[in-house]
Amino acid sequence: MPENVQTSEPTDAGARPAARPGGRNARVRSQILAATMELVARDGVTGLRYEEIAELAGVNRNSVYRNWPDRAELVKDALLQYAKDSAPLHDSGDLRRDLVDFLVALAERLSSSVGRAMLQTTVAATVNTDLTEAMRAAYDQQFAAARRRFESAVDKGEIPPVDSYFLTELLSGPVYLYVNRRRHPFTREVAEKIVDVVLAGIHATTS
Amino acid sequence: MPENVQTSEPTDAGARPAARPGGRNARVRSQILAATMELVARDGVTGLRYEEIAELAGVNRNSVYRNWPDRAELVKDALLQYAKDSAPLHDSGDLRRDLVDFLVALAERLSSSVGRAMLQTTVAATVNTDLTEAMRAAYDQQFAAARRRFESAVDKGEIPPVDSYFLTELLSGPVYLYVNRRRHPFTREVAEKIVDVVLAGIHATTS
Repeated sequence: MPENVQTSEPTDAGARPAARPGGRNARVRSQILAATMELVARDGVTGLRYEEIAELAGVNRNSVYRNWPDRAELVKDALLQYAKDSAPLHDSGDLRRDLVDFLVALAERLSSSVGRAMLQTTVAATVNTDLTEAMRAAYDQQFAAARRRFESAVDKGEIPPVDSYFLTELLSGPVYLYVNRRRHPFTREVAEKIVDVVLAGIHATTS
Repeated sequence: MPENVQTSEPTDAGARPAARPGGRNARVRSQILAATMELVARDGVTGLRYEEIAELAGVNRNSVYRNWPDRAELVKDALLQYAKDSAPLHDSGDLRRDLVDFLVALAERLSSSVGRAMLQTTVAATVNTDLTEAMRAAYDQQFAAARRRFESAVDKGEIPPVDSYFLTELLSGPVYLYVNRRRHPFTREVAEKIVDVVLAGIHATTS
């Protein structure tokens, strides 16, 4: 992952904002990564062109080349940002609310064109190594966040010690089916029911 | 769905065995439907040819034409049989065991080439109406079986009254993720954990 993003355009304050989080650099970086995801969803990884990314992001082409000389790295960073932004697992101190928020956001992501493209890649017969690698990294990041969240809940005595992979799949699995089968809408109420049943089940089966 | 399957070949007993379940006719029918699924998985619905089906099934071409003049109907019947045979939900009287068996069989189906092809169709952007319709019918059949099984369990007081769609998706959702992510193997032990947590959760949240 590049340490910072350098652009050839003048910055707001006329100085390098590399060290300022949320500043222009972070914005440019975020725009490039968002544009990359949009184009990957539309054309796939093999059709990805840096010029189009720059145009869609509204940035200088060199900003893309300089910071991501390796296309695989760009795709990976784009996916990591996307996965994090589109369905974050917060730690508000209220596990139930955080999980419900996460499932609702996950359902929205899965319904989006980018989410749909990612899912198609996951189940595709032909394996695209760049994208497959990137998706592996995105899942790792997601599971790491889930593990941290569950550990924090275990520490507070909210839930007994759990296998975080198992718990994550148990919670998010039904969301995929609701969204993809399009039989019944995935509402916040459904998300609450899933979280309530699963958390109660974890409590009841762990002694 | 055709009432019976007529073949131009002589039957074992030299008489029409239409009314004999499990007889030659049922076998021919089953062979045709299995061959259809295999070819749909390999080539998709648009590439489906009756001659190839007959050849693969080892039956007379007329057997296919006569009984399924409509290709969409053939694809639907093939999928219905496949869905039923590949992951049946039995009623042995032991709900836990029946559900664990179902999840284990579902994981096997999803890992197979036919299951994989079906999943790709489900998440594909391009909609093939014949196959989409057939898959709808197969899901309807699956949910009807699940509803019957849950109702029988409710009648016996094994579980409180439940939304069978919700319960089915809650149980089978994680199986899809385990199989498709290929991170951790989906074992019988995992299936048991899912069933135990979900059933305990259903009990604990319904009063």
